[in-house]
Amino acid sequence: MTTSKNADRAKVLAEALPYIQRYWGKTIVVKYGGNAMTSPELASAVMADIVLLGLVGVRVVLVHGGGPDINDMLERLGHEARFVNGLRYTDQETMEVVQSVLCGKVNKNLVASVNAHGGRALGLCGLDGNLLQARKLDRQDGCDYGLVGDICEVDPSVVNDAIEDGYVPVVASVAVGVDAAPGTVYNVNADTAAARLAAGMGAEKLVLLTDTVGVLEDPDDPSSRIPTIAYETVDGYIERGQVTGGMIPKLECCRDAVEAGVARAHIVDGREPHSILLEMLTDDGAGTMVL
Amino acid sequence: MTTSKNADRAKVLAEALPYIQRYWGKTIVVKYGGNAMTSPELASAVMADIVLLGLVGVRVVLVHGGGPDINDMLERLGHEARFVNGLRYTDQETMEVVQSVLCGKVNKNLVASVNAHGGRALGLCGLDGNLLQARKLDRQDGCDYGLVGDICEVDPSVVNDAIEDGYVPVVASVAVGVDAAPGTVYNVNADTAAARLAAGMGAEKLVLLTDTVGVLEDPDDPSSRIPTIAYETVDGYIERGQVTGGMIPKLECCRDAVEAGVARAHIVDGREPHSILLEMLTDDGAGTMVL
Amino acid sequence: MTTSKNADRAKVLAEALPYIQRYWGKTIVVKYGGNAMTSPELASAVMADIVLLGLVGVRVVLVHGGGPDINDMLERLGHEARFVNGLRYTDQETMEVVQSVLCGKVNKNLVASVNAHGGRALGLCGLDGNLLQARKLDRQDGCDYGLVGDICEVDPSVVNDAIEDGYVPVVASVAVGVDAAPGTVYNVNADTAAARLAAGMGAEKLVLLTDTVGVLEDPDDPSSRIPTIAYETVDGYIERGQVTGGMIPKLECCRDAVEAGVARAHIVDGREPHSILLEMLTDDGAGTMVL
Amino acid sequence: MTTSKNADRAKVLAEALPYIQRYWGKTIVVKYGGNAMTSPELASAVMADIVLLGLVGVRVVLVHGGGPDINDMLERLGHEARFVNGLRYTDQETMEVVQSVLCGKVNKNLVASVNAHGGRALGLCGLDGNLLQARKLDRQDGCDYGLVGDICEVDPSVVNDAIEDGYVPVVASVAVGVDAAPGTVYNVNADTAAARLAAGMGAEKLVLLTDTVGVLEDPDDPSSRIPTIAYETVDGYIERGQVTGGMIPKLECCRDAVEAGVARAHIVDGREPHSILLEMLTDDGAGTMVL
Amino acid sequence: MTTSKNADRAKVLAEALPYIQRYWGKTIVVKYGGNAMTSPELASAVMADIVLLGLVGVRVVLVHGGGPDINDMLERLGHEARFVNGLRYTDQETMEVVQSVLCGKVNKNLVASVNAHGGRALGLCGLDGNLLQARKLDRQDGCDYGLVGDICEVDPSVVNDAIEDGYVPVVASVAVGVDAAPGTVYNVNADTAAARLAAGMGAEKLVLLTDTVGVLEDPDDPSSRIPTIAYETVDGYIERGQVTGGMIPKLECCRDAVEAGVARAHIVDGREPHSILLEMLTDDGAGTMVL
Amino acid sequence: MTTSKNADRAKVLAEALPYIQRYWGKTIVVKYGGNAMTSPELASAVMADIVLLGLVGVRVVLVHGGGPDINDMLERLGHEARFVNGLRYTDQETMEVVQSVLCGKVNKNLVASVNAHGGRALGLCGLDGNLLQARKLDRQDGCDYGLVGDICEVDPSVVNDAIEDGYVPVVASVAVGVDAAPGTVYNVNADTAAARLAAGMGAEKLVLLTDTVGVLEDPDDPSSRIPTIAYETVDGYIERGQVTGGMIPKLECCRDAVEAGVARAHIVDGREPHSILLEMLTDDGAGTMVL
Repeated sequence: MTTSKNADRAKVLAEALPYIQRYWGKTIVVKYGGNAMTSPELASAVMADIVLLGLVGVRVVLVHGGGPDINDMLERLGHEARFVNGLRYTDQETMEVVQSVLCGKVNKNLVASVNAHGGRALGLCGLDGNLLQARKLDRQDGCDYGLVGDICEVDPSVVNDAIEDGYVPVVASVAVGVDAAPGTVYNVNADTAAARLAAGMGAEKLVLLTDTVGVLEDPDDPSSRIPTIAYETVDGYIERGQVTGGMIPKLECCRDAVEAGVARAHIVDGREPHSILLEMLTDDGAGTMVL
Repeated sequence: MTTSKNADRAKVLAEALPYIQRYWGKTIVVKYGGNAMTSPELASAVMADIVLLGLVGVRVVLVHGGGPDINDMLERLGHEARFVNGLRYTDQETMEVVQSVLCGKVNKNLVASVNAHGGRALGLCGLDGNLLQARKLDRQDGCDYGLVGDICEVDPSVVNDAIEDGYVPVVASVAVGVDAAPGTVYNVNADTAAARLAAGMGAEKLVLLTDTVGVLEDPDDPSSRIPTIAYETVDGYIERGQVTGGMIPKLECCRDAVEAGVARAHIVDGREPHSILLEMLTDDGAGTMVL
Repeated sequence: MTTSKNADRAKVLAEALPYIQRYWGKTIVVKYGGNAMTSPELASAVMADIVLLGLVGVRVVLVHGGGPDINDMLERLGHEARFVNGLRYTDQETMEVVQSVLCGKVNKNLVASVNAHGGRALGLCGLDGNLLQARKLDRQDGCDYGLVGDICEVDPSVVNDAIEDGYVPVVASVAVGVDAAPGTVYNVNADTAAARLAAGMGAEKLVLLTDTVGVLEDPDDPSSRIPTIAYETVDGYIERGQVTGGMIPKLECCRDAVEAGVARAHIVDGREPHSILLEMLTDDGAGTMVL
Repeated sequence: MTTSKNADRAKVLAEALPYIQRYWGKTIVVKYGGNAMTSPELASAVMADIVLLGLVGVRVVLVHGGGPDINDMLERLGHEARFVNGLRYTDQETMEVVQSVLCGKVNKNLVASVNAHGGRALGLCGLDGNLLQARKLDRQDGCDYGLVGDICEVDPSVVNDAIEDGYVPVVASVAVGVDAAPGTVYNVNADTAAARLAAGMGAEKLVLLTDTVGVLEDPDDPSSRIPTIAYETVDGYIERGQVTGGMIPKLECCRDAVEAGVARAHIVDGREPHSILLEMLTDDGAGTMVL
Repeated sequence: MTTSKNADRAKVLAEALPYIQRYWGKTIVVKYGGNAMTSPELASAVMADIVLLGLVGVRVVLVHGGGPDINDMLERLGHEARFVNGLRYTDQETMEVVQSVLCGKVNKNLVASVNAHGGRALGLCGLDGNLLQARKLDRQDGCDYGLVGDICEVDPSVVNDAIEDGYVPVVASVAVGVDAAPGTVYNVNADTAAARLAAGMGAEKLVLLTDTVGVLEDPDDPSSRIPTIAYETVDGYIERGQVTGGMIPKLECCRDAVEAGVARAHIVDGREPHSILLEMLTDDGAGTMVL
Repeated sequence: MTTSKNADRAKVLAEALPYIQRYWGKTIVVKYGGNAMTSPELASAVMADIVLLGLVGVRVVLVHGGGPDINDMLERLGHEARFVNGLRYTDQETMEVVQSVLCGKVNKNLVASVNAHGGRALGLCGLDGNLLQARKLDRQDGCDYGLVGDICEVDPSVVNDAIEDGYVPVVASVAVGVDAAPGTVYNVNADTAAARLAAGMGAEKLVLLTDTVGVLEDPDDPSSRIPTIAYETVDGYIERGQVTGGMIPKLECCRDAVEAGVARAHIVDGREPHSILLEMLTDDGAGTMVL
């Protein structure tokens, strides 16, 4: 590398100073998923970002769902999917697969990956220390969704203890059922789990890694990204139909988190390498911020 | 309950005093498996014992393998078993199932169970905090056993941190591979993992729950249990053929643990309810003790 | 012991779990006296109970009076007793004997006894760290009772420090006089001292060991024990004459303790071995509970 | 007070600086007895000195015997003294009186006195936390001295804990018997107890308050005080007959303490008010120092 | 030294006990200046007092101005003084000299002096840890006084940290400018700095060492010292002309400190050796106390 | 900023990860001087680097000399320089100027500068907490160099305390004289002070900021920089005349630091902005490293 390039690098590092100062000692909950999880290269960049943030004094928590691994296993088992109002019905067998794959395969692989990048990770799920407690989902629509849970209580002690002891907590989104027979485990939405955990920890920031550039002014024009949305106006965006599909629940998560005390919630493009660092350590940020 | 029965109960409680004094602040590693794991009633008794020991000041660690759940899943997946010298060959797909079932299903179910008995459990595996580190098993017999690992290093920090923070650590027996590509996970024997962890933690006691009454003087006479074996004499028992089959590696585990500094190692009958309490809090002990 | 008996023992131990969980980290003040103090066998059972409770995480404090030892010494000294309104007048010489016997003989013998049962005891009295502060008793009846004190202030620091340091505090019921010449010591009632100390420490429980089975519905029928009395109804029991004699002040102590914030106060039969454990670690409890 | 007198006072205070610096954080064990104990005025001066030393950062421990109070009580009880080789034979009844008077009356009165001077005292004896452990005295002379003990073990934890918690420990010289039935208490010499405790605590200084000006060159000339004696030469002084009577065991105590690691041991004239301060906070010291 | 003199010394030391008890753990801010600073002998006495107070548990802070050293240096540099309304105008060059001499020469010499008396000092100024923050003085009189500052904020963390770590903080009276270009330093009055720091630390006492005996009833009669002034009456003294000249701002400092929560503020005669000790450790006190 | 530029920035930040991991919790002593001190822009870059390193977990210490400010002041005072063997003779007046300017002006301005960049700095010199102790320089050449000192002892407690409390210590290179009258202060070389402090703290790295690119193979060819020199070969470079002038003592400092246990010592070009970051957080490093 030439000297001039080195000088540029030093300049970039130096410019990160005010951002590092801003987040030092603050809690950031990152919901990890999508391409950032399936592409090895992007995944490696996320792990590097997470470890780096931990080193510069940020209290990082990684929350994840299961993505394609669950479907893959269900398919291999010949377990047919059944949908209710567009939501997958979670029967007992599906729940066992969800728990095995989420907490056993995906979670521990993430732990290994953080460790391989020089961090010290600890793999948790909602059962550990009764972290996430849920009741059976009741959408008041007369439908039964099986073992899908609605988080009713968060006890972040086990996550806080892990951070105090110097670990990066990695959290799989299953919850202990408090309204059912002992041993009942519920499948919970990972975005929601991240939002609720962020609220329970009094986090500074919730970051949802997605496969989009953020909320768009014109859905057909990727360059029309809306950088900032006030949380009180989220419902308007939805009602006006400006956001649709999978973006709706994500935006609602952000709204709920901010309403519950999280300073800022972000929908970030996980397809960009190091998008977490970009969001946190540069001026422009990335994606759409709800505040 | 009549008064006289109450008096008996108080007497029993009082008699436990010297045993509680003896183990206060000491570390006990329990390898959990067999009937004690598959029978709901026995399992519940084990959980109660574990939580009770924690409350009376014992630093308890629960180590477990996967038992029938792994075979069950492999079968459901139609994955044919392949054996090498009597040892199941662990190919990549098997390893994924092992990790999912062990760390995701069995481990977290145990966590939920300890919690349901009033404890606070934390589910770990050898990947968390690089707890168990292994190399590919090499028996010097020219055979390849796939992803079966040989534990080469134990870093008990994550387990000790959990205990300091007031949790009961529950440990699944998979290990991070240190001699292979990043992300390689090895299947390790749970008895061995328990023994190595006990040694690494300077434990007072290793307790292996089995489906036998212990080592027998006369293999055909269950009443001929040998209560105590000096660790230097273990090899003699094996060479004389007095112990056979699955008892051999268990006895070797005990021998190795004691040799590595664990004060006492026990082969205990997990088919008896509360056999852990019996072993620890009464005079007669239970099963066979290696010291 | 036969296996079946062992199994029973394990069962009893396991059944104690929920009670131990309930009292873990809580403070229990035990007033020790009567037969439980004079019978060596009963005394040994009390000491064992106290040490056991300490090991299972209960913060136990033992408060005691002097019982027969004081009278015995006064008699040997030929010191004639003088009574005022049924209360022994405490002159200077009597007070010296009370202090010597209570704080020197009885207290330190209890300390030795707790230690002999494997505990670590620390013998205290109301003078240590100004634990119990009293004024001269004034019953507004124009009578002078000599150096009998009325506790006006409790500073539990020295007891709390002892517990934090791992000791079982044993407290003799004499108090420092704050309304008299420096060096004035008052004789205070041990039941009251225990009740006041329990209130001052925010104790969960006050246990008064007595030589009765508790408050009786029919004073002539020992089987008519009343298990529970609401503290607001205590005065009614006294006014109706249902409780008489020495039971009255004990019940008043319980009432005052509960009124001052102690969760539950118990009059327990100290003639039963291990009655403290019975009360705390079984369902039936023992004696009469004021709450 | 006139200004010039004030100036003198300030000067004296300022001159104490280097001495306070020297002893800050160091442990000083004071054996309290003789006139300093029986004269109220001298006693008050000792208490003030003790509290002052505590405030300026010295870790002070007060050890005491019983003096005339024990004899007085034995006399009042009509208990005849019996001597063996000049040593009082301690039968069971005498031992009870010794324990009651020492630990109950004298010790707790000292506690009250330290407290009255603004300190926070804690009264202990050799039984508390097994502080002083003894065997039956055996002088190899075929004589039985009854319950007179020979200290064989010191566990200073309870004294150190008290100091750490901000108390002035006051220690009565009785010891728990480790060679006899549980509950056996031995009478031990207070000078020896102080010396052994000083050694066990790694004290900087042992101060024995006596009724003499120290060791004299010419026993008939009080002005011939010997200020310093090397501990190796103590035996010579005794063999030459230069010290006699009660001074011999005191000098031996000093010798033993120094030999066991105490930096300096002092025989100080307790008949001088504030002789402890004089010894510690002025240049001339006082009495005879063994080093 | 004769015995009788020693006895006197011990008596004086003992008499200091209640005063030491009163100030133990309390914060005392001493403004150091005048003769006490220029006379080597008086300076040595102040240092001894400061170190002594630290040893007896007082949290002492020393605040100082620059005195003659600044004038001396300005003169040597040929820098002409310019006065505005009787206040020296502080231009940039003067400010540099003030900062160099105050923080570099005077401050560090004081540090060396405290150390030479056996203390451990740490030299600070208002810039360290942003201790003293100021705005440009604006007396609302249309005049410009240059770089003279008005303290607007005190962050005592750096002083408290130093005390916790066992140091005597020595503070030079310059402040960081918060209303000007980065790097702007203001000259602030040392009496005011001491008063503001005392208030910010919740000090028990502010002591201003001066070259007077205190406030006088009759300005011409040095024996007419007024020992105590209520802070609400300070303005009256000034308005009546009873105090004049340099005493006015000092008295106002005391008034402001007391109003801001400091328990007592003292104007003390620094020409008396050990006047700080006299004020704190004797009954008569010294100078004039505002409360 | 365009997205692609942002991506580059994120990449640079991510690439710093392994370097940050390497230095986390390690001590780095930076000797600050030359152009990096006189150019406001370079100075600002150094301050930013220092604060950034602190935030990413490095224990940074800044040591400085006085540079041109001392000469400037001496000149203004008309104080003529006198040289002995090429070394400036430090008379009493010069020493006063050195101390004032170094500890008062330069040091505190650096403190203000670190604070202005968002850090929390604490200005120290060798007198604070007796940090640097020196004897009069004696080169065994019969010459008197006045108050030039030779560091004989380093007590880094005050620096370590400051770091523990979260401050960036800034250290001026004057030392307390231990071989002279109390109050004697010596002028010590800042490079040496930094090297000795690094050794005393067991630092990982000593960084000397200079106005050169490092040691050159060919003194006339700036591109012939030697990146690495083994400390044992330093003397050879000097003897061969390959390094000359001011580089000789700098190289000797590095040699001495490494010999005394510092892992690596660096001569770095302070004329490059962010050269400290460049050295620490990129692969190429900068300047010449002695190890």
